[in-house]
Amino acid sequence: MNIISENTAFGGMQGVFSHESQVCGTEMTFAVFLPPQATERPCPVLWYLSGLTCTHANVMEKGEYRRMAAELGLIIVCPDTSPRGADVPDALTDWQIGKGAGFYVDATEEPWSRNYRMESYITEELPALIAKSFRVDMDRQGIFGHSMGGHGAMTLALKNPGRYKSCSAFAPIVSPSTSAWAQGAFTKYLGADQSVWRKHDACALVEDGARFPAFLIDQGKADNFLEDGLKPWLFEEAVKDTDIDLTLRMHERYDHSYYFISTFMDDHLRWHAERV
Amino acid sequence: MNIISENTAFGGMQGVFSHESQVCGTEMTFAVFLPPQATERPCPVLWYLSGLTCTHANVMEKGEYRRMAAELGLIIVCPDTSPRGADVPDALTDWQIGKGAGFYVDATEEPWSRNYRMESYITEELPALIAKSFRVDMDRQGIFGHSMGGHGAMTLALKNPGRYKSCSAFAPIVSPSTSAWAQGAFTKYLGADQSVWRKHDACALVEDGARFPAFLIDQGKADNFLEDGLKPWLFEEAVKDTDIDLTLRMHERYDHSYYFISTFMDDHLRWHAERV
Repeated sequence: MNIISENTAFGGMQGVFSHESQVCGTEMTFAVFLPPQATERPCPVLWYLSGLTCTHANVMEKGEYRRMAAELGLIIVCPDTSPRGADVPDALTDWQIGKGAGFYVDATEEPWSRNYRMESYITEELPALIAKSFRVDMDRQGIFGHSMGGHGAMTLALKNPGRYKSCSAFAPIVSPSTSAWAQGAFTKYLGADQSVWRKHDACALVEDGARFPAFLIDQGKADNFLEDGLKPWLFEEAVKDTDIDLTLRMHERYDHSYYFISTFMDDHLRWHAERV
Repeated sequence: MNIISENTAFGGMQGVFSHESQVCGTEMTFAVFLPPQATERPCPVLWYLSGLTCTHANVMEKGEYRRMAAELGLIIVCPDTSPRGADVPDALTDWQIGKGAGFYVDATEEPWSRNYRMESYITEELPALIAKSFRVDMDRQGIFGHSMGGHGAMTLALKNPGRYKSCSAFAPIVSPSTSAWAQGAFTKYLGADQSVWRKHDACALVEDGARFPAFLIDQGKADNFLEDGLKPWLFEEAVKDTDIDLTLRMHERYDHSYYFISTFMDDHLRWHAERV
């Protein structure tokens, strides 16, 4: 693991690191915030998955999570959204496919399947590295994210309810199978058979029996992507008549930006701290 | 005034605007955060002056001021650090002179004097525009900034104690006349006669009799620029035997970055709210 930067913040440390990923077959970069409590004892860890076009850096710079994470004693890990590098396939004219658009799935189709294995990376390889490198209590993990990263957090939680104790999302893509934002990437990564897509779709997972205790979702009503890409009411519909406890909050005037995310970040960190 | 962007955040609104500046002879961009209270009554305003290489955007994205400003009911204005545009002179090979390095002075030397009039811009033209465009209580103004912007905030406060009720700084250049960071720009903008520089140097202003009630200064001990460019102990020395109340806090492990600024932002906003 290489140290790219380390900066003291809120009594803790915001670091950026890179490593050679075996799973993705390329160098991967990620950010870790260690709260001051991590110098004394293993702390719970939250995985923050970012949205389309982002790297590890966007939420690290604009998400405003450090003050509350330092107060609550939470480690925050922010991975990249896809593999990177000259040898990694890309769709240069489509920001919804390729670099910056990994969708947190393991691609099965060529040429994507060589590098685009973000599900295994986020749930296996990176946690092993984090557990080895920092004082982390791996029995206390939560996962959250924004937009494509909200999709990632919700699907990975539904598929790994024993691993994650809490899940929340900002403006998530809850139904990528029917979302204009995700169908292109799913076709490229997973093939045209839409029955395969159901394992990577929060609404379909619930319909097919997957369960997770509770979700917090915040969504801005002035989000330009609400009707086309996000449609949180589809998840509300999916969890009806299940024992899944969904808190869906719709906010007047808020859009899809980090100004929205940072406004509700404290609430999400408290949600996780109460559950991990 | 043109609206570049408006985003809801923390119940208020983060805007970015531009206008044709008569003083600087070019289009200027600035950011304004309006707290939720500004829809009900005129609110106090804080001017945040940024450091070398920055625009209005850096602190807007990374400064983490919105949550506390919304709580305290403070309007935050973040101007650019220099004039911009194809016709504005620049020093392409020196980041400490020209664009991004206005130093909050009115240049007297050609070719800089045509556009580099940041002192008049910050203290006259922009306040008039802000007062006209937003619900601001102009009897309640404070000023703060980082590095070169800390220099700007402190010198403008010392020269305008009737206008500003509060002043604070993160890692300010307190003595530009003796700072490796500022001597080049001062020579270009103000000429070689160093007696003129004293009107733009916080330490010299105090030595020459300028007064302001109180300053809060935070400084990281791991700041790479501490010994060469910043030297806050020179200001501590200058205010000794005056009635200026200086709170200088030196912080172990903190550097010159926005991770440092954001950590202590809440304290600065409270400092101003108690005084404006």
